[in-house]
Amino acid sequence: MSELPHLNAHGEAHMVDIGEKAASNRVAIAEGWIRMAAPALAALQRGELAKGDALATARIAGIMAAKRTAELIPLCHPLSLSRVEVALDVDTEAGAVRAEVTTGTRGATGVEMEALTAVQVALLAVYDMCKALDRGMTIEGVRLIHKRGGRSGDWSR
Amino acid sequence: MSELPHLNAHGEAHMVDIGEKAASNRVAIAEGWIRMAAPALAALQRGELAKGDALATARIAGIMAAKRTAELIPLCHPLSLSRVEVALDVDTEAGAVRAEVTTGTRGATGVEMEALTAVQVALLAVYDMCKALDRGMTIEGVRLIHKRGGRSGDWSR
Amino acid sequence: MSELPHLNAHGEAHMVDIGEKAASNRVAIAEGWIRMAAPALAALQRGELAKGDALATARIAGIMAAKRTAELIPLCHPLSLSRVEVALDVDTEAGAVRAEVTTGTRGATGVEMEALTAVQVALLAVYDMCKALDRGMTIEGVRLIHKRGGRSGDWSR
Amino acid sequence: MSELPHLNAHGEAHMVDIGEKAASNRVAIAEGWIRMAAPALAALQRGELAKGDALATARIAGIMAAKRTAELIPLCHPLSLSRVEVALDVDTEAGAVRAEVTTGTRGATGVEMEALTAVQVALLAVYDMCKALDRGMTIEGVRLIHKRGGRSGDWSR
Amino acid sequence: MSELPHLNAHGEAHMVDIGEKAASNRVAIAEGWIRMAAPALAALQRGELAKGDALATARIAGIMAAKRTAELIPLCHPLSLSRVEVALDVDTEAGAVRAEVTTGTRGATGVEMEALTAVQVALLAVYDMCKALDRGMTIEGVRLIHKRGGRSGDWSR
Amino acid sequence: MSELPHLNAHGEAHMVDIGEKAASNRVAIAEGWIRMAAPALAALQRGELAKGDALATARIAGIMAAKRTAELIPLCHPLSLSRVEVALDVDTEAGAVRAEVTTGTRGATGVEMEALTAVQVALLAVYDMCKALDRGMTIEGVRLIHKRGGRSGDWSR
Repeated sequence: MSELPHLNAHGEAHMVDIGEKAASNRVAIAEGWIRMAAPALAALQRGELAKGDALATARIAGIMAAKRTAELIPLCHPLSLSRVEVALDVDTEAGAVRAEVTTGTRGATGVEMEALTAVQVALLAVYDMCKALDRGMTIEGVRLIHKRGGRSGDWSR
Repeated sequence: MSELPHLNAHGEAHMVDIGEKAASNRVAIAEGWIRMAAPALAALQRGELAKGDALATARIAGIMAAKRTAELIPLCHPLSLSRVEVALDVDTEAGAVRAEVTTGTRGATGVEMEALTAVQVALLAVYDMCKALDRGMTIEGVRLIHKRGGRSGDWSR
Repeated sequence: MSELPHLNAHGEAHMVDIGEKAASNRVAIAEGWIRMAAPALAALQRGELAKGDALATARIAGIMAAKRTAELIPLCHPLSLSRVEVALDVDTEAGAVRAEVTTGTRGATGVEMEALTAVQVALLAVYDMCKALDRGMTIEGVRLIHKRGGRSGDWSR
Repeated sequence: MSELPHLNAHGEAHMVDIGEKAASNRVAIAEGWIRMAAPALAALQRGELAKGDALATARIAGIMAAKRTAELIPLCHPLSLSRVEVALDVDTEAGAVRAEVTTGTRGATGVEMEALTAVQVALLAVYDMCKALDRGMTIEGVRLIHKRGGRSGDWSR
Repeated sequence: MSELPHLNAHGEAHMVDIGEKAASNRVAIAEGWIRMAAPALAALQRGELAKGDALATARIAGIMAAKRTAELIPLCHPLSLSRVEVALDVDTEAGAVRAEVTTGTRGATGVEMEALTAVQVALLAVYDMCKALDRGMTIEGVRLIHKRGGRSGDWSR
Repeated sequence: MSELPHLNAHGEAHMVDIGEKAASNRVAIAEGWIRMAAPALAALQRGELAKGDALATARIAGIMAAKRTAELIPLCHPLSLSRVEVALDVDTEAGAVRAEVTTGTRGATGVEMEALTAVQVALLAVYDMCKALDRGMTIEGVRLIHKRGGRSGDWSR
């Protein structure tokens, strides 16, 4: 195996063998932001206040994307998610929407990629919702903040 | 229609009608970065130098994700991509990998979401490749840098 | 060809050739109901009143399913939807939620199947939302109510 | 949690945590009908008698849709189906085709949604097969008739 | 561009730009065989004679796979198939099942990959149907036999 | 049940019940070849030597297809792959590229179909890469070479 576990001794991509790893309960939490101009953020908030589907659309997009992580990320093992929570908060001061996603499974491999994929797609769905109002939006700070379970144990940023 | 075109007058999510919009040639370019610790970046580079599949995996992931944008983003119209380029550069000084994606289509709606989705998934695939070496990686600066075609004309950051 | 256009002269399933059909603007409207016990319907309504995501989830499910019709229905031609509207109404008197879906495209084949698929999946998502409260829910009256465009012209129930 | 388990305390859609639920053998049976005019039903039957693929197409559509339930229904947990049976019967007296689907799994969550999704898509495939002959077909009576396994035990209509 | 159009000047995979290519009517025909032991072939034939779904399952698998070619083959352009025919013949003398697939589209790129993908997946579905009876089956001779349309004109083997 | 386990007593396709089968560690190895004219093979090799993505693209295609086997093959049970290796070798003497795929899982059903699907799609991706140089390429000798685990025990060609 190379330094990068996803490459074999010849440097070729493979899906590493996890057949001998024990199953354990695993949780991952990831976060990210989308920054946008004040008018776009205000419109998004008004849409929400009017009981609109703006953030619901992004929550659903994130949850559904988490389930498809192994289809999107070539070397990810398929796993059965037991839990997905997508929280989206409009932060007027920061001029941004923050996404925080918690994923869980019982299995032989972690759920970080599922949490990160959900953050990315939820933020893309917010982008899509607001793109008519601001073309300069930027997605920032997408990262893991906590993981639990598995051989390597707990980790928090 | 509300201020947000993806919500109707009742605030409900819908896929807006583009049946009357004229088809035109459209191009979008988006970019983004993934920052990581020096040892992870060095391992990624060594993997590349050894003709490894590290960045090829991410390029393919980005291209394939671009084709599935309308499955991931709830209110995106399906469109037939005529072109996808994913460029990935290891920038040792910045401690980051930069992704730049160009997408094209001939159609009634833009290809920004496809370019951004490809950037996001290509960077997630790099994350997946390096996550055994660095859990603190952060995806940053994902944004549109250029768009061409359509009623609203050309735009560059 | 047999009496059923989707079977060839040998009775074998095929995707019929539409290569010579002219493209036209097409619209289809379909509807359906899900009947449930009063307490489940009341809980659904309270969830809505509290700005909950109950019906938004079903709207998004319907829109996303419309885009995947050709993956689900074996002999359907893939087409590019230009429009999807999913309306869901809680009808307390009837003890039901009604779904009405409008789909549109410009192409060589109709969009009825897309509208019906969206109705079916939106109602299944309502079912999933309420199934802890009522196992006896029934989906009823799923049918086309209007179609426009194509060689066979307009049709209304 | 709200009254609707799929909404959290804020009314937001989430995929509920089943990580602590015990796995058990689960079975669900669902049914549904598609009613159509006599000439369409007769053509369908003649297609079958001639060894045509008419109902086979719908059976396969139902089985394949059962496997994709978690992709279609936003808050459904992914699960590994251990069994899917799709029975389709032409009932000339009732002027309808009846679908009955049995699904099974060993897992922490039920298989009702998989059985119902297979019924819906099998009936949509019959609709697609016959739509050139009858535009007035209606899908009716889609509902659960039996479930076994899980904490809540057995249930029959 | 390199000698291989799917690699750019740096040898990196990309989806080539077909935005300037004219649309034309395109057809492709591909074929392939699966060879198996006599008892397995006889069982398959008896299944067919008894009006069983054996070959219908494979026909449907091939048609549905043709529609998903661009999801499977990384650098394939998505296109809207206007036609798919899958013919399967049991050839007792040759000890094989032969698949022949015809695909058609109106577009800027060819439909060979769609025809070949349908052949491959139809034969895999036959394999799956018979694998309990013969583990030594071999898929052979999968190739293009005809193409029509596009700049390069007609071609037959 | 008929002679073909995938057909029930009426000859109808079903997904057989594996709910009572014990889980075990399973491995399958499959192989296949794509033969092409010398100039195409030489170009492929030069693309590789120049660190190009030619074979990496096919490896990734094979790995990703293995994960989607149950979506493509109608009666396959979904399973969680624990391992996928795709080896591709250019054999100048034979005028061919050889694919060998190893798949593994812990479950109640075998992984042969996953290994064969990965071989087929990896070879199709090589075909797609080289089709501008040789239209006469043929895929040959796709077959299982080894399987381990499950009630029927080990088997090698």
